[in-house]
Amino acid sequence: MALRLASTRLMTSVARCAPLSSKVPSILLSNSRLASRNVAVQPIMVQKCFNATLSTNSKVVAPPMVYIAGEEMTHYCMNLIIEKWVTPYFDVSGWDHFDLSCKSRDESDDKVLFDAVDAGKKVGAIFKEPTITPSAIQVQEMKLSKAFGSPNGAMRRGWNGITISRDTIHIEGIELGYKNRVLFERHAVGGEYGAGYSTVGRGTLITNFIPSDGQDPIIVDKRVLTDEFGVAVVYNNPYDNVTDLAHYFFKRCLEAEVTPYIVTKKTVFKWQEGFWQSMKKVFDSDYKTQFEEAGLLKRSGGDLQHLISDAATMQLIRWTEGGFGMAAHNYDGDMLTDQIAQVHRSPGFITSNLIGKDDEGRIIKEYEASHGTVTDLWLDHLDGKETSMNPLGMVEALIGAMNHAALLELEADASKQDKFDEIMNYTETLRRAMHNTFRYGQGTRDMAGPTGFTTEAFIDKVAWRLGRYLSDQVENELPPVLEEPDRSYVRKGFDNIDMAKLHSEFDKYDKEGTGRVGFKDFTKMLVKMGIAPEKKSTDKEPDV
Amino acid sequence: MALRLASTRLMTSVARCAPLSSKVPSILLSNSRLASRNVAVQPIMVQKCFNATLSTNSKVVAPPMVYIAGEEMTHYCMNLIIEKWVTPYFDVSGWDHFDLSCKSRDESDDKVLFDAVDAGKKVGAIFKEPTITPSAIQVQEMKLSKAFGSPNGAMRRGWNGITISRDTIHIEGIELGYKNRVLFERHAVGGEYGAGYSTVGRGTLITNFIPSDGQDPIIVDKRVLTDEFGVAVVYNNPYDNVTDLAHYFFKRCLEAEVTPYIVTKKTVFKWQEGFWQSMKKVFDSDYKTQFEEAGLLKRSGGDLQHLISDAATMQLIRWTEGGFGMAAHNYDGDMLTDQIAQVHRSPGFITSNLIGKDDEGRIIKEYEASHGTVTDLWLDHLDGKETSMNPLGMVEALIGAMNHAALLELEADASKQDKFDEIMNYTETLRRAMHNTFRYGQGTRDMAGPTGFTTEAFIDKVAWRLGRYLSDQVENELPPVLEEPDRSYVRKGFDNIDMAKLHSEFDKYDKEGTGRVGFKDFTKMLVKMGIAPEKKSTDKEPDV
Repeated sequence: MALRLASTRLMTSVARCAPLSSKVPSILLSNSRLASRNVAVQPIMVQKCFNATLSTNSKVVAPPMVYIAGEEMTHYCMNLIIEKWVTPYFDVSGWDHFDLSCKSRDESDDKVLFDAVDAGKKVGAIFKEPTITPSAIQVQEMKLSKAFGSPNGAMRRGWNGITISRDTIHIEGIELGYKNRVLFERHAVGGEYGAGYSTVGRGTLITNFIPSDGQDPIIVDKRVLTDEFGVAVVYNNPYDNVTDLAHYFFKRCLEAEVTPYIVTKKTVFKWQEGFWQSMKKVFDSDYKTQFEEAGLLKRSGGDLQHLISDAATMQLIRWTEGGFGMAAHNYDGDMLTDQIAQVHRSPGFITSNLIGKDDEGRIIKEYEASHGTVTDLWLDHLDGKETSMNPLGMVEALIGAMNHAALLELEADASKQDKFDEIMNYTETLRRAMHNTFRYGQGTRDMAGPTGFTTEAFIDKVAWRLGRYLSDQVENELPPVLEEPDRSYVRKGFDNIDMAKLHSEFDKYDKEGTGRVGFKDFTKMLVKMGIAPEKKSTDKEPDV
Repeated sequence: MALRLASTRLMTSVARCAPLSSKVPSILLSNSRLASRNVAVQPIMVQKCFNATLSTNSKVVAPPMVYIAGEEMTHYCMNLIIEKWVTPYFDVSGWDHFDLSCKSRDESDDKVLFDAVDAGKKVGAIFKEPTITPSAIQVQEMKLSKAFGSPNGAMRRGWNGITISRDTIHIEGIELGYKNRVLFERHAVGGEYGAGYSTVGRGTLITNFIPSDGQDPIIVDKRVLTDEFGVAVVYNNPYDNVTDLAHYFFKRCLEAEVTPYIVTKKTVFKWQEGFWQSMKKVFDSDYKTQFEEAGLLKRSGGDLQHLISDAATMQLIRWTEGGFGMAAHNYDGDMLTDQIAQVHRSPGFITSNLIGKDDEGRIIKEYEASHGTVTDLWLDHLDGKETSMNPLGMVEALIGAMNHAALLELEADASKQDKFDEIMNYTETLRRAMHNTFRYGQGTRDMAGPTGFTTEAFIDKVAWRLGRYLSDQVENELPPVLEEPDRSYVRKGFDNIDMAKLHSEFDKYDKEGTGRVGFKDFTKMLVKMGIAPEKKSTDKEPDV
């Protein structure tokens, strides 16, 4: 085998990283061993994970996985990554490939999307590159027969989506926005995304529900509309899977050692009470004691705390220490996770995993980056210009998908334990190689400044480091804790900093013109910006 | 008359502050002359506004206004303010008073609320103190017969609410969060606030619309629900008044010299297209040329720009320079304005004005603070402890309501021009007296630190300064531009800063331990926090 690693040693390491919860419901058990692997591990892990021998005589057959390809810069970048980081060690012929580019969707009349969804349902582990949902202009430019919509809806339906997990990504030794982890569960179904609607004028709007058990129909709502121009909107929130969501969320919070919060607008949107009640019930019966024992309820008054959604927008700015998790309805989750992405610097540092289940209750996990196809760099690349794309979010997704695929294979065949361990070691080593490349100041230019590496040079450097780590499997010393790289230069179109304004902002605090500001001015600045660390918070009254 | 001021001179000043738009629709004309008065004026104003003589022989009869009283700390504070800042100069016996305390609502079986709404409809100018929407526990504590809901719904309905305007408040010489003004219009009707809903199991949900003009009924939506536990939700968005909202918004943006943005989720919630179209139509026909001439479309690509709601959560963190306005649907506005409040330091520095109209199309304006009754300080006060409450937001609301009342009186009787001018001079002088008290380091402790004034001492100091300004009506010199007061100490429960954490944060950037950080580290920090000024922005792809 290509990547040999003593099973017992690795499993000790895994156990240290991700203590198994004893009360995990069976449906979710397959996730718990991997849950903590989506994020940076503690430095103590380094010696444990790399402490093994490697032979490259043969490649590991990558466990079955669905690979959904997109286009533009991210597709180019992933092709390089697969070629230089993955295929030297893995035979990936077992991966089920689908090309979800606009052209491919158009040529197949979108059959490729439904084929990918079907395959994902069978395989259970999916990696997806960023794709383009074409605008009217792009439809013309690409000569498409029509404007294909976002594939997300089809995937959420096809895989019985429970939650979209969007967590902060951290690189040990480098601070981004939140100091500690922020976890988020966004209910993957319900809300206005699936609403029915109609433009309406004056008249009467009546909504009836006819129960399938033969009970009498009920009038859900009857209202007289008096505007000449208006819209009527109907949606439903299916709450059966909130119990699954709750187990998944609380387990993840426990493993990540963060404090859970449930976010709704239930003080005004009374129907959302059911979401809170389902979460609270699971918490009280299965998790409260564990959270208490772990000391994770101190900041939330000793119990699971509810946050009103609009108050949550405020706390996300104040709680920059991180160390919390939130679970919310679909649209609230959409808004709040984008806010988290901005506080944590950019969507490049947030995961996006869709968790669903197949008809037998087996978990399905789809992993993708939170960003798009990075058109501006793609155009530069086509123009022959140098580019420097940070692939961190995409690689976190790839690692997640490969780990989940390995776990599904192991669950189906217990004799695959060694192979599972090898894959765990590989992905952990890959993550470490990538992080350390950033920490050695060899990152892409969004992180390392103008001296940073190009897209291709970064991929080559990580490939070199990955090979070295896997060959050695022993790091005699921890990598040095490097200074934070200069982040005043960042990728165009993402964080396009106005240095002149920044200078003028700084000068305001540098009153003596010494080129430096003291603690008092620093404090003023942080307080002014609303981002000073605070000791406690209070809830906000509802705004009806 | 008590507050004499040469009409011509004041009107020159008003014209400088608030250039009238030539294309304002008649329904909104009554606002334009006051629109810019809700915020800090330019320093140039000082000499112009105070350049008049005062005699205190008689009091001005305050124009009719509805005054809705609340309770706890804010009620105590407003009583002092009315006594010491207002009644020395005004006979307020013409104000229509309503006590909206829990006790009063309980004793009148909420008749007091509906009486207040009726009076507000007749009078057209309303000031409201913060009120309590009692929790179940408070119902018991206060021995109420039932839990009365928020009065906001009844007010929005009764006054045909068009928009809730929530703008940043600025004090010249002191920076809070956004450097320049941020305006916000939140559609005051529609959305889930008025939704009908029902808990449902398996069955069929059908929504029909029966037009009142006799046309055939249409099926808005029909769906099969498969969950055992779910909810069905129905609402409507009435869009007739979006045209009024558009005029009000664009006019305010022009006067404040900010760039307008329309925020919706229309890329996914297709029915919201109507909101955008109505806004765009008004913009193109009545305002585009003016915005172009004023150079206000440079940052938005030369046209009115649409922002997707979740992308707006990101821009609100990035655009700390301010200088923009946003108009949004009801719930989006709820979320986004709370986020703005936190970026701009706290809800104490955001206005909250409900704009509606009566059946004859006459404008109704209700002004209130964005914060609650400040229970923690009230308990301290009852305990005999010193308190230091910042009344800025409430006083901005009082000023707005008094100005609007004066304008309505003038519109009904053109002979009241002198009185109108006097009131404008009084409110402008009051605002200046309050701001300067902050600037002289005599503010409340949230602004001035532990040496700041108590609630009562601050009110006394402003009363003294107001009296002096009104007596002199001439400031020989502009007040000095004072240093920003130390804001590292802030009011308990609002911005409760953890100084130890702040020190450790500072130390990270003060690598040499000199007690000061340089520009490079300052830049890193701002970039890390995602709040560095940026040059341009890109829209985000929709997330379905």
